[in-house]
Amino acid sequence: MTDPDPLGGELVTANRILAARGVVDGWGHVSVRKPGSPDRFLLARPLAPAVVTRDDLLELDVDTGESITGETTYLERHIHSGIYRARPDVAAVVHSHAPDLIPFTVTDTQLLPLLHASAFLGEGAPGFEVDGVPTGKLIDTPQVGDELAASLGAAPLVLMRWHGVSVVGASLRQAVYRAVYARENARIQLQSLALGPVTYQPTDEARDVAATVDKVTDRVWDLWVHELGDI
Amino acid sequence: MTDPDPLGGELVTANRILAARGVVDGWGHVSVRKPGSPDRFLLARPLAPAVVTRDDLLELDVDTGESITGETTYLERHIHSGIYRARPDVAAVVHSHAPDLIPFTVTDTQLLPLLHASAFLGEGAPGFEVDGVPTGKLIDTPQVGDELAASLGAAPLVLMRWHGVSVVGASLRQAVYRAVYARENARIQLQSLALGPVTYQPTDEARDVAATVDKVTDRVWDLWVHELGDI
Amino acid sequence: MTDPDPLGGELVTANRILAARGVVDGWGHVSVRKPGSPDRFLLARPLAPAVVTRDDLLELDVDTGESITGETTYLERHIHSGIYRARPDVAAVVHSHAPDLIPFTVTDTQLLPLLHASAFLGEGAPGFEVDGVPTGKLIDTPQVGDELAASLGAAPLVLMRWHGVSVVGASLRQAVYRAVYARENARIQLQSLALGPVTYQPTDEARDVAATVDKVTDRVWDLWVHELGDI
Amino acid sequence: MTDPDPLGGELVTANRILAARGVVDGWGHVSVRKPGSPDRFLLARPLAPAVVTRDDLLELDVDTGESITGETTYLERHIHSGIYRARPDVAAVVHSHAPDLIPFTVTDTQLLPLLHASAFLGEGAPGFEVDGVPTGKLIDTPQVGDELAASLGAAPLVLMRWHGVSVVGASLRQAVYRAVYARENARIQLQSLALGPVTYQPTDEARDVAATVDKVTDRVWDLWVHELGDI
Repeated sequence: MTDPDPLGGELVTANRILAARGVVDGWGHVSVRKPGSPDRFLLARPLAPAVVTRDDLLELDVDTGESITGETTYLERHIHSGIYRARPDVAAVVHSHAPDLIPFTVTDTQLLPLLHASAFLGEGAPGFEVDGVPTGKLIDTPQVGDELAASLGAAPLVLMRWHGVSVVGASLRQAVYRAVYARENARIQLQSLALGPVTYQPTDEARDVAATVDKVTDRVWDLWVHELGDI
Repeated sequence: MTDPDPLGGELVTANRILAARGVVDGWGHVSVRKPGSPDRFLLARPLAPAVVTRDDLLELDVDTGESITGETTYLERHIHSGIYRARPDVAAVVHSHAPDLIPFTVTDTQLLPLLHASAFLGEGAPGFEVDGVPTGKLIDTPQVGDELAASLGAAPLVLMRWHGVSVVGASLRQAVYRAVYARENARIQLQSLALGPVTYQPTDEARDVAATVDKVTDRVWDLWVHELGDI
Repeated sequence: MTDPDPLGGELVTANRILAARGVVDGWGHVSVRKPGSPDRFLLARPLAPAVVTRDDLLELDVDTGESITGETTYLERHIHSGIYRARPDVAAVVHSHAPDLIPFTVTDTQLLPLLHASAFLGEGAPGFEVDGVPTGKLIDTPQVGDELAASLGAAPLVLMRWHGVSVVGASLRQAVYRAVYARENARIQLQSLALGPVTYQPTDEARDVAATVDKVTDRVWDLWVHELGDI
Repeated sequence: MTDPDPLGGELVTANRILAARGVVDGWGHVSVRKPGSPDRFLLARPLAPAVVTRDDLLELDVDTGESITGETTYLERHIHSGIYRARPDVAAVVHSHAPDLIPFTVTDTQLLPLLHASAFLGEGAPGFEVDGVPTGKLIDTPQVGDELAASLGAAPLVLMRWHGVSVVGASLRQAVYRAVYARENARIQLQSLALGPVTYQPTDEARDVAATVDKVTDRVWDLWVHELGDI
């Protein structure tokens, strides 16, 4: 039987994967833009990602960041709508408080690519700033959503001081993949810096490797689905 | 069927959550003040929190720190009674030996807020001192309970040298939430300090964020209950 | 029905607990002296502790370190016999390669007590030395067993360079408890030293606390048995 | 009933063990040379090791690095064929992205033996270099496979910048064992270096210990199989 709503099913899976891998806990959320309806995206009711089901998915308007039916969703839904407005190339957004990334939001250390699997970081990992000053503002209005999107620019993710990270992808799977491997890179960078000067991946090399890796990340997604068991 | 003892049920759940999240192991305990009877609180018999059941809950007297029925409870029950005497606003107390917090009790490094989820630390995280000197005393008499409460002051928690932490809340859920996220903050602070100078959340900003977070922590509690499965 | 061999049953449980808590992996072993037969102790056939059953337990001679029946046991069985010969007060020995303790065998940093639960470290944590020089020798003869016991002296454990630790107790439960909490202390000490100068528990205070803790460690053992489920 | 293909069965087990122990995740692969057919080896179709079954195993040609049947396998299959061509003594190869080893590929810190269980590192842990310069090249042609094998030389493993490690063994079990304990050593070295100057195992001593350890690693393999449960 064909799934009447494959996008909703994959978004539930994305929620579960992010929870199972420890990228999100009680906090964090993930959305996906509707194919063919670029002004709409799906996001859950305000629940921990681990418990989200299909029945919890709402359709939101990209312009307003509000649900079509008026139902309540996450306070920081404007992360998603703000980015979708500014980045037509973005099909999915993950927002997480992944602990290992926080140190890169409260110190001067830049998150830089250290392994092929996270070579996408070569495209940059800017911090959320307003008027050039890092901020911990909650993304609770459309305007702050626009400010966050401006800091993101063309990058794959934006680091948010005292808060976490928002990660984008050209597909839902890519956004989830990047959310997991950005944290993995952070862990390795923390370890490496303790040993002494670190040689990061040059930007050009990172770009080439990222393109190669992108072709085979379905292998990783399939593993994560396998590890969830039946959901 | 209505639960005839919802408070007891929630206290058992709190015990299990703290154990499941690694905040307590064989050591540690959690209590809750009886609504409407501010001079009474519930605490378990001297068992590891993971194995506490409703039948293990005892009613204790805030003034004496002894159980009403004379049954034996934890040696350090005076942590709870001492704090309840001094802090009428406190409805629950968690005492844990959570490892990641110990380094902040044996060095000069102060525990300071680094993420929104633990912004409550902006209210302070004093150390247990007697006559201005940090102490590792066990809280085994009412008098030491008073000393601990004096060190706590109006803060959400008090750090105890070579020992652990005692965390308070205006509700049982708040105390449990804070116990988990104080440790989370400690982990992130340990990582961040290894990278260089750290920018902490300013106190005013932390207070505002903490008020916002407090409104949605039920989402986190619900997740933790979900992860326990049926108990 | 009364267990006809409670000591054997408890030794199997000790093996499982040490494995479940990550103190031992494929390597490591635990023994117990026979009550009433101080020249005999029980040790398993050369198996990973996680898979040891009652049928795998052998009786060994304290003088020779060999099994009564001539069956083969661990290469390093002489850790146990050497210590039993030198320390009549010792009823059990745990040998582990617990990773977090290794750094204290290859650097000049001394393992020192930082939390009440491991206050027993106040009695010392000497290194294995021969003629005053740290050594990584395998304990594969009675003579090397004697050398190890000489380094242990009256302490609760001896650290072994590039190798691990051997921990003793006045009971099987105490030896297991100490093996777990020595590692816990090592983890906390590693974290604390990264923050700056550390204040360790004074020896006298550690001794007092250790005596108090010893009275209530059954609570911890009971939890660990609970976590094993039915074995 | 005799297993008609014991080698294939053991290779599936090796895949599962490496996944269960966190040495590989979505990435990484393991191969084994066919006994009696030194110009042939088994490697899986391009799947995450955790999901590999017997039906996924392909036979590859050592000379070309291509499967006999023309089926597609991993992009970096030339790691395996390159090493098998250069090292007749090698019976198995593990390629992993094990995180704790990456810091040793991006800093000047050499991976050196710190515990008996990983004494095999005394034989060296060179980095992948081309013309004396560390490189992060993917091993996607026979020529790069030869370059990697040249960097490996006679060592038990070769570290690959921004990438991971390739580990060899005289048997499949030895290669798996080394892949696990190389990472274990990396973790301990990271911890130890944070404490101050470190005393590494002298090469001669490491060699002696490695020979002893090699005789008893079946104990470790048996444990890992036990922990997999029925597969």
